[in-house]
Parts: sequence; structure tokens; C-alpha cells
Amino acid sequence: MALTSCGEDDVLPGWDDNLRERIREHLESLGVEFAFGHRATDCTVESSEVVVSTETDDGTETEHTADRIVVAVGRQPVTDTVGLETLNLETTEREFLDIDEQCRTSLDHVFAIGDVAGEPMLAHKASTEGHVAAEVLAGRDASTADQQIPAVIFTDPEVATIGLSESDAAAAGYSPLIGEMPFSASGRALTTNSPEGFVRVVVDEEASTILGAQIVGADASELVGELIVAIRAGLSPHDVSATVHPHPTFSEAVMEACADTLDEAVHTN
Amino acid sequence: MALTSCGEDDVLPGWDDNLRERIREHLESLGVEFAFGHRATDCTVESSEVVVSTETDDGTETEHTADRIVVAVGRQPVTDTVGLETLNLETTEREFLDIDEQCRTSLDHVFAIGDVAGEPMLAHKASTEGHVAAEVLAGRDASTADQQIPAVIFTDPEVATIGLSESDAAAAGYSPLIGEMPFSASGRALTTNSPEGFVRVVVDEEASTILGAQIVGADASELVGELIVAIRAGLSPHDVSATVHPHPTFSEAVMEACADTLDEAVHTN
Repeated sequence: MALTSCGEDDVLPGWDDNLRERIREHLESLGVEFAFGHRATDCTVESSEVVVSTETDDGTETEHTADRIVVAVGRQPVTDTVGLETLNLETTEREFLDIDEQCRTSLDHVFAIGDVAGEPMLAHKASTEGHVAAEVLAGRDASTADQQIPAVIFTDPEVATIGLSESDAAAAGYSPLIGEMPFSASGRALTTNSPEGFVRVVVDEEASTILGAQIVGADASELVGELIVAIRAGLSPHDVSATVHPHPTFSEAVMEACADTLDEAVHTN
Repeated sequence: MALTSCGEDDVLPGWDDNLRERIREHLESLGVEFAFGHRATDCTVESSEVVVSTETDDGTETEHTADRIVVAVGRQPVTDTVGLETLNLETTEREFLDIDEQCRTSLDHVFAIGDVAGEPMLAHKASTEGHVAAEVLAGRDASTADQQIPAVIFTDPEVATIGLSESDAAAAGYSPLIGEMPFSASGRALTTNSPEGFVRVVVDEEASTILGAQIVGADASELVGELIVAIRAGLSPHDVSATVHPHPTFSEAVMEACADTLDEAVHTN
């Protein structure tokens, strides 16, 4: 049994309702108990156990006893060491170093990449910025402007996202068209005992381009690669769905989710 | 211990030397012994064991004793059942039904799909032909002409291929440019204890398009999806390598193999 306590009202704040629900339910099925809306107020570490005190908005106080605790309240930039503070570099509201699309700080000859330069604090965002900064320093044209950064949560099942969710797309003025393929309809997922999850693609109906994708499933972190490339290249859902994918694989679900936006899915219609 | 005996001189006849070598060596490391060039001449099944007699071109005769045998000598089309033989459909040299790009047999109103219609005898080739035949029957435009069929061998590690190999590309008159990323340089592969294998892409230097790819590795069957889509859409290796791939994943090796063709690989240069 694991108990998760936090001040938020659900897992994965900021992510799509639908993704959060699947992950929460799966974790509950694995025996995780959640205590949402509980802010930690105190913590006592004994030799064999730890006691965390929490309170809720309505004043309810609770003591949670456990073998171990993991504290995961986020990260903040450290910009006042190694003499960095003497440069007086401009920072954002949240104290990240403010950089432009060439990864240049407010001092023309000082570049910053990675977590210290802001969200998303992901390794591949950092290495992308590293590439761009190196190219710019070498006198070549490079920019982070046209880059979309995928995000993966290495939970069980994994979650991978790229580009716009349905609600983001609607908020941005698109009429998003949704295609989905559940892994429960995938032969490969069933035979590897991984029927949880789905591939969902968000398509711009007018331009017939893929705006984003959300994948929950055993191999989500690898499957999203195909959709990242398709989105960056401006491919249509037909470009993906008309491509022969090998059977039996999870990647057929990517093909089928794209086919679903065209009302041409075979496994689910 | 498993012993594999066959009349061929290596595993996977018809595949690239380099792929065959990796698979053979890995199988040998798992304890498989090979007896290449041994044609089976007789087989005796006893209650607790089976004895297979073989001979080689130079007349050497051997008896192999085992618990079980698996016979895998290929498949041939069955076209003389269910009354099919009365139609006198035209067949190819190897007795497959002869179909055109709309999956039509020599009789205009009779269509054939799948193994009976020829190589490659793969499920996804069959379902692609099924799609095309259904579209054509419904009066829509469809053809198998622009389809490339990926192939996967579900060995350990897996092998996945699409399009042209280096030697195929050279034979077709291209000056193929090769990019490779070994999984031994992939963080994800190392941390999941799967360092065997590589992603290799074959690029047409002149047009800067991807002609083919060969992947050996734990997740090859899924990773090839990204390259199939890229090849069909005529994307360049830069289109793939400049796309941010999530870390840590095997798919970074696809990105890096493409970058390698541009002499821009980070993990291996």
C-alpha cells in the first residue's frame, strides 16, 4: 500500500482530465491510496516509521504513518552560485534565467540552457537548447522557435504527449477532430498483457494536419516518436494511416487513431 | 541447448550480412548451435527423443538427437481447394495467384489478397491488400503501388526493416549514405539492459531522402514506425534528426542515426 498526499485535487495537475483519470484509476488498482487536498504541515521521522501531519482547506487535520516518504514538490532555479549572481542576468517571474530563441541571456555573450532557463524542465528540452546554443556560438542559424517538446511520464502505464490536447486546440481557435484507438483493441497489447491505455490524436479538420497526440500505454514513450515527426513535418492523419505498419505491434494503434479521425478505423468501427 | 540445422549457409537468407551476423552471434551467445549446409535426409521419432539425419554437399552424414524438432521450410499457396481450381485463375511461376495493383486476379470480378497472392507473406501486407480490394470494390481509387511493406522478425533482439538496404540501394543506382546509432550508446538501452543492436538508415545523398532502414534491438518492431512514415512522406534525415525526441527512449537512436548521415550525431561522434 502506498498513500499519496498532496495539496492538489488530482494527480498530474495541468494534464488532460482523461489522462489523469486513467493514471489515477490504474494506480488505485495497484493499491495506491490518494489523499488529495491534504497539505503537509509537519513531519516526524522516527527510527522505523515516519509520521506526516496534514490539513485540508476545511481545517481537517490528519496524521499519516508510513515506512518512508518521498517529497516531490518541484524544483526551483539556482542562479546565485558560481558567481552567477554578479552578472545580474535578467530573470523571469519564477526566477528562471530569461533567454531568447537562440538561448541567449540578457548578456549577449552568455547563454543558458536547460532547467535554469525555464519550463519544461526535461532532459531533451535541455539538450535541444544545447544544440541550438552551440550552433549559434558557431555562427550558424539555429532557433528553438520551431521545436515542440514532447513529455513522457514513466509511470505504469506510460504517458506521452506532444503538441496540443483537445482543450488546448479548442482554446487556440481550432475545431479539433479527435481520433482514438484503445489498446484493448490491439492484438499486440492483448498478447503482451498490456491492454490499458489508448492513442489519441488531435487533428485540425480544416488544414488536415495533426496538432497533437496523447498516448497512455505500455510503450507510449517510444510510440510518440512517429507522431512528433509527423507533426513537425506537417503531415496529415492520412499520411500516417495510409502507411503500412508492421503487425503485430503497438504502432498499429497510432495508424488506427489517425484513421479514426477520417472515419476509416478498422479495429474499432 | 538448441541446435539449428538447415541447408542454407547462414541464418536469415536474403537479409543483409550485417543483420544476419548480429542475430547469429546473439543466438550463439544464448546457447544455440548451428549446423549450416546440413540437409535433412531422414527423421526418426522415438518416445522420448527425435533423431534427424543430415548430409552436407561433401557427403558428410550426421545424426542429430533432440527432445523436439521444429520444421520450418516455408509455405506454398493452396489454390486447388474450395472450387478455386475451376476458375483457372492465372498464377505466377511459384503458383501464387497473379494479381494487379488493385488486387484483381485474371478474372475482373475476382480479387485475391494475402499469402495466396504472393510475397511477402506477412499479415500487414495481407490487410493492406484487403483495404485496397475493399476500396476498389466500393468504386474508390486505391492501389498497392505506393506501399512499402516493413518486415519484422520477432527474435531476441527483434529485427525490423523497411525499404532499401545499403546493397539494394547501391544496386538500384543510388550512392547510399549510411547513418548508424548503436544501442550501446543509448542511455535507455543501457538502463533496460538491452545494449544489443543498432538503428541504421540508408539515405539518398542527392535527394536527401531516406531510402530504407534496418533496426536490430529490443524494441525494433515499434521503432520502425517512425521511419516508415518518414520514408513514405519523402522526409529528409534532417526532418527526423531535428525533431525533439523524448529522453530517455530508444527512439533517440532513430534521431541519432539520421543525424549521423549528416555528420551531426552527438552520441557517437
